[in-house]
Amino acid sequence: MSTENTNVKTSVTRTAISPTRAENFPEWYQEVVKAADMAENSPVRGCMVIKPYGYAVWENIQKALDAGIKNEDVQNAYFPLLIPLSFISREAEHVEGFAKECAVVTHHRLEKGPEGTLVPAKDAELDEPLIIRPTSETIIGDSMSKWVKSYRDLPLKLNQWCNVMRWEMRTRLFLRSAEFLWQEGHNAFENAEQADKDARRMLEVYNDLYANHMAIPGFMGEKTADERFPGADRSYTIELMMQDGKALQACTSHNLGQNFAHSCNIKFQGRDGVEHFCHTTSWGLSTRSIGGLIMTHADDDGLVMPPRLAPYQVVILPITKGEDTSAVMNFADKLAAQLKAIGVRVQIDRSDARAPDKMWAAIKRGVPIRVEIGDREVAEGKLTHTRRDLGRESKTTCSADEFIGTVQGILDAIHTTMYDRAYTKTRARIYNATTLDQLKSFFTEGDLGFVRAPVDLLDNADYQIFKKDNALSSRCLPFEDDGRMVLVGKSY
Amino acid sequence: MSTENTNVKTSVTRTAISPTRAENFPEWYQEVVKAADMAENSPVRGCMVIKPYGYAVWENIQKALDAGIKNEDVQNAYFPLLIPLSFISREAEHVEGFAKECAVVTHHRLEKGPEGTLVPAKDAELDEPLIIRPTSETIIGDSMSKWVKSYRDLPLKLNQWCNVMRWEMRTRLFLRSAEFLWQEGHNAFENAEQADKDARRMLEVYNDLYANHMAIPGFMGEKTADERFPGADRSYTIELMMQDGKALQACTSHNLGQNFAHSCNIKFQGRDGVEHFCHTTSWGLSTRSIGGLIMTHADDDGLVMPPRLAPYQVVILPITKGEDTSAVMNFADKLAAQLKAIGVRVQIDRSDARAPDKMWAAIKRGVPIRVEIGDREVAEGKLTHTRRDLGRESKTTCSADEFIGTVQGILDAIHTTMYDRAYTKTRARIYNATTLDQLKSFFTEGDLGFVRAPVDLLDNADYQIFKKDNALSSRCLPFEDDGRMVLVGKSY
Repeated sequence: MSTENTNVKTSVTRTAISPTRAENFPEWYQEVVKAADMAENSPVRGCMVIKPYGYAVWENIQKALDAGIKNEDVQNAYFPLLIPLSFISREAEHVEGFAKECAVVTHHRLEKGPEGTLVPAKDAELDEPLIIRPTSETIIGDSMSKWVKSYRDLPLKLNQWCNVMRWEMRTRLFLRSAEFLWQEGHNAFENAEQADKDARRMLEVYNDLYANHMAIPGFMGEKTADERFPGADRSYTIELMMQDGKALQACTSHNLGQNFAHSCNIKFQGRDGVEHFCHTTSWGLSTRSIGGLIMTHADDDGLVMPPRLAPYQVVILPITKGEDTSAVMNFADKLAAQLKAIGVRVQIDRSDARAPDKMWAAIKRGVPIRVEIGDREVAEGKLTHTRRDLGRESKTTCSADEFIGTVQGILDAIHTTMYDRAYTKTRARIYNATTLDQLKSFFTEGDLGFVRAPVDLLDNADYQIFKKDNALSSRCLPFEDDGRMVLVGKSY
Repeated sequence: MSTENTNVKTSVTRTAISPTRAENFPEWYQEVVKAADMAENSPVRGCMVIKPYGYAVWENIQKALDAGIKNEDVQNAYFPLLIPLSFISREAEHVEGFAKECAVVTHHRLEKGPEGTLVPAKDAELDEPLIIRPTSETIIGDSMSKWVKSYRDLPLKLNQWCNVMRWEMRTRLFLRSAEFLWQEGHNAFENAEQADKDARRMLEVYNDLYANHMAIPGFMGEKTADERFPGADRSYTIELMMQDGKALQACTSHNLGQNFAHSCNIKFQGRDGVEHFCHTTSWGLSTRSIGGLIMTHADDDGLVMPPRLAPYQVVILPITKGEDTSAVMNFADKLAAQLKAIGVRVQIDRSDARAPDKMWAAIKRGVPIRVEIGDREVAEGKLTHTRRDLGRESKTTCSADEFIGTVQGILDAIHTTMYDRAYTKTRARIYNATTLDQLKSFFTEGDLGFVRAPVDLLDNADYQIFKKDNALSSRCLPFEDDGRMVLVGKSY
């Protein structure tokens, strides 16, 4: 990957990212993604290329979440990419929700056309078109219908890590793209209670990922009827508030009741000897979570990586002058080896960039701790380290041994600081409204954030009109309010 | 997953799998896959469902290989599923090899048709059809052309774990399916020597996986010109011999020369200040490897899992009689916890199946070590363990502590035994031929295996005719013969 030698002129430009969050949040976001080398648009409309630094974050998310999923006795498996039209048509609401904007495979061969270019071969048209999975309830439901015979086969808990595709007109890196990566879990149970408990349980697993790995505080709650997954009885969600006050749906977990069991014919012989339909759930988390991570933590100098997911937790910046760099490089190599030995992910910037450029590259990528080593440090047996989350001036000088002894604690402190900061920022922008007028005046005054209002607001026709006119949505009924309140916000 | 209570009648049927390898190898293979619950055909033509037990093997392959890949300083990334027709058309040979039989996306929306069913929407036809990637040289090459500017950006080493699709008429689980999972690596270098060295190096990484994780001895070598990857200058391969004497291509690594660099415009400014085209490689290993694992190691009682990839290395079979099962279950739980603590993957069969059924389920799944615990074992503080690779009668009785102390050694011994057995079997079926007549008589006598013949055979027109008429192929020029010999066999 090319490391650009961007000279950040601190005298002219005060921040590494331009525009700043305050100036233009959407453009700031694109610039942060670019400056951190996370992803870029591809030549295929609506599809993105996830670059190595961005993909490394996804791998760390996968690792943490996969462990949490397996801890719930869910088994990973893999189901076909392509879904027959007849399958997707089975569940009426599901069709409305998903089957419309999707990639349709109609041919299985190409041939040379009249102008010498390749065209779909006429004699290779499929009898039944196939669609690229927008989600896999129907194709996994088909397998479940074969695998489940008796209550002894239940619960059946399956998950797959895969790509899905939903044709999108307006796309944004990570946040909304035609193709994205995700995991989708599909569980089947004997009764309604087990299914609802499971849908809520899987939301807890997601919340653990967000809170304890991504340092992101979210609002767990239930979706309102108009925001439910097509075909679900109940949808649970974690809603995040971004730094511009807008809402991002972080993941969802659905209690599908017996809807898909009916349409996919998932039946079992119960303990009573009688045949019953299963109660199923589905739950998913995608690469969109990386967009949430960026818009929660990044600042006007670029990304700020939560330490537990950071591809590199520590970057060592050798500051070499003159010809003989061996003393500094040896010091750096030794330190890196010692950090690796205690489980710290570390990188040495071996580029021949100038010292300030190395520093800015690390800042823009949001590496949690930067360690500078120059001739003076080597001579004194010391190093200087800087926390990304505390800004540019948070330098500490100590011995290498002292750093190695405290680095895990520093990483934990960064995690906690980042979580607490996001929590405080988010909570400060929750506005309690008891009337529709209060809600209206909040959103018409132009600030953004979430309004928390009594849940009977949902029955108010005026609210529904105001919501639509102002591109607002009911985000969720937060668990913390026991379903008595609704959070309203503007969404991504 | 339903655990079938198959009563294996040992008095009537001698083997758990019917037919046996000798009776009908292809059917035996399908039955082994089914009995071990590894995968099944899906309702989507040519696509398979990889069931949890099969997917767990793939996860273990991924884990081992991904570590090997990262150890070569390759970075994982993700590129679009869909490739524009114009991209795939860029490399002439590549088109011939891949672009013909593939899934073509022509529409991006469905609508209700005249008969009320869903049909591709006429007004949503794509200007340029897209194909589902059969391999990603062209789309990754496009990114490389943007990312590489200078020799400082090289080598650029990228890998992605993904699904690909090649429309196949005749499919077999794992061995040949329209959709399959794989990793594809794509590296770019300054010069020809580096690229060729890399293509060979990545083959070594694959060989480490096969030999040291899958217990499979393969023949590393170079493909003959007619078997090369479309668009490659040189293709390297590992060829395996299955128990029926047929050949399976285990993976490939290609030196693409400057062919794709030319067609994708991957250029860099060299150390000489002049612009040059890169030299690239690509290398891939797929879920087909699981087919190779099965056909190398399985026997007439089912799968035999190499211990280092086995989803469960030890299965504990509680043999309970009467009402009070707590003593046996406590013993099993304690043992499982102790095994987990030393890093052994262990499962307790908690089903209420009869003791022989539990045993046969474990045999058919090929679990390396079975541990039986009954009332007598608990009373004596002992257990009985059996190695899957040594057949049904290899029972050993010892204390739980002794087992825990020796289990890693037993697993290593199983690995070595399996590798050595496969090596001996394979090498016994290599027939040296110095003339075409010798080769002909070997294959017309009906036995299968590889013929090793002098490489000048390839220039013999009669060989080419005989090869075609008898569905044989030149498998590779093995490295061990320094390119002087060619291996000929019948392939999967």
